[in-house]
Amino acid sequence: MKLVDIGERGLVKKILGFLESVPFIGDDSACIPYGDKFILATIDSTWRRTHFPAEMKPKQIGWFVTAISLSDIAAMGGHPLAVLISIALPKESEEEMVLEIVEGAEECARKYNVHVVGGDTKEHKELTLSGVAIGEVEKSKVLLRKGLEVENLVAVTGPLGGAGAAYIAIRNKIRGISLDRLLKPTPRIKEGIDLSKFRLATSCMDISDGLASTLYQLSEINGVGFRIYKEKLPIAREAIEVAKYLEMDASSIALFYGGDYELIFGIRREKVENAIERMGKDKVRIIGEVVEERKITLTHDGKEEEIPDRGFEHFRKENYL
Amino acid sequence: MKLVDIGERGLVKKILGFLESVPFIGDDSACIPYGDKFILATIDSTWRRTHFPAEMKPKQIGWFVTAISLSDIAAMGGHPLAVLISIALPKESEEEMVLEIVEGAEECARKYNVHVVGGDTKEHKELTLSGVAIGEVEKSKVLLRKGLEVENLVAVTGPLGGAGAAYIAIRNKIRGISLDRLLKPTPRIKEGIDLSKFRLATSCMDISDGLASTLYQLSEINGVGFRIYKEKLPIAREAIEVAKYLEMDASSIALFYGGDYELIFGIRREKVENAIERMGKDKVRIIGEVVEERKITLTHDGKEEEIPDRGFEHFRKENYL
Repeated sequence: MKLVDIGERGLVKKILGFLESVPFIGDDSACIPYGDKFILATIDSTWRRTHFPAEMKPKQIGWFVTAISLSDIAAMGGHPLAVLISIALPKESEEEMVLEIVEGAEECARKYNVHVVGGDTKEHKELTLSGVAIGEVEKSKVLLRKGLEVENLVAVTGPLGGAGAAYIAIRNKIRGISLDRLLKPTPRIKEGIDLSKFRLATSCMDISDGLASTLYQLSEINGVGFRIYKEKLPIAREAIEVAKYLEMDASSIALFYGGDYELIFGIRREKVENAIERMGKDKVRIIGEVVEERKITLTHDGKEEEIPDRGFEHFRKENYL
Repeated sequence: MKLVDIGERGLVKKILGFLESVPFIGDDSACIPYGDKFILATIDSTWRRTHFPAEMKPKQIGWFVTAISLSDIAAMGGHPLAVLISIALPKESEEEMVLEIVEGAEECARKYNVHVVGGDTKEHKELTLSGVAIGEVEKSKVLLRKGLEVENLVAVTGPLGGAGAAYIAIRNKIRGISLDRLLKPTPRIKEGIDLSKFRLATSCMDISDGLASTLYQLSEINGVGFRIYKEKLPIAREAIEVAKYLEMDASSIALFYGGDYELIFGIRREKVENAIERMGKDKVRIIGEVVEERKITLTHDGKEEEIPDRGFEHFRKENYL
């Protein structure tokens, strides 16, 4: 069987089947038992053609690979401890570019009170970066993808579609749209720690591949479905602008385009007030609820339609961002 | 300045200059302070064209990337805690191949009592793997590259040139030479732990880029030189066979070809006996001594010649393995 026929998620499932004895594998970060803590570790590999649009400057590339690794620590409720960066690139590259990548990585790490503590540099045909983030979380407070209960509410930590809108703007040469959400994503470290510390979430994951795709992954892991309220989707300003320009539905950008790196979490209804008090209203955006039937629907004006399983997935024949 | 003009080590020096506030950066693994321990973390990126000869089967590829990451933990005297593998490859690849890579990685990890606990899979033009190893060591017992004292003896944990001989055998189509040392390297985890636990070494590093290159790196870090005794070099059987076939000097394979992943360490003379008792004679192969003058020489039959700084380095115009 070729990878193009099973897709990234099919492949990951097979790998996890092979490694079934390993605890917690398959979550945003790996959990390494360490006393009453888990040491969290995650790696994200990225390269020029797939991940770095021409608009992304070296400093932003360094920031990006650091931020998306830290986002995996955030999704577990973890405190970051350190970042490592592996940089592979053609030997004709300028030294300046590498130093700017490191500068961007270190800038992002410092924002979360850690450092780039190591990595490696090698020669490769295509600029290829791997970001490793190390973190820690109390065992009893780790956030996992599994844990959703029927009737939980589903919330996200911020507006969606901003990165997708930037991607569409670049491809369609639409001017005046901010590219920040795509080029300089924000890992939701503080939000993840709050969710963990105050035991607010029943499950958590970061939305790297788009909301729809993330919901399908959570549905499979938890054996539940979702009812999402279209009116409640927090749509990024950039997505509204792009949608207007292209005369499309802004919510489809929020649903099917990745790159936002907000957290999505399940929360018991009685905890919502507490969550808003602790985290602020902007960080607890209820978008729907967990339902028993394994179906993912979008409700709008009293009508309910199924959300298709679209979004970015490696090894697929066709892809959104 | 282009990378081809400054080389990998020149580049690393610049990066370290930029990150100068970070403790212990630039060693085999990164050290993350954690109570009275260091959490050790290291990443090694590898790919088809540079690192995987056609003879290397998928299982061996998985083993290889795991082993070379664990070797960096070994060089710090660390106990491994976990391994992560990032696998990027073309979508036309066979699923079977990926599972065999994971199997090889897990086999190597298990040999050292740990697991592959995470990673990622992505689509890339060329098979590209990153291995991450996480470990731990007591702060007071960490082995560093820096620490050599003049008059220390210099020792290695096993025979050298085996991987280089395999590489030469492949390139020259010499049959009957074992390729194991190249295709399935052994991280010296136990040896590193022994050196650390019994405080036997003044400094330690793994020999991934060849002995000469490693000595030059240690010379620069420690501000010392080395006198190596040619007669004392433990030459791998494979290197002797290949050298005989090609009518070359076997010791040059041991000196200038990488891939052996033995540890090199400094040791005070009065500790040698203790080290041999603890680790066995085969694991403490004295090859020379630390001298004050920053010159690296090979002594043979009473004659002394300088060892050139050759070996593998990324971004260089010409390279050995």
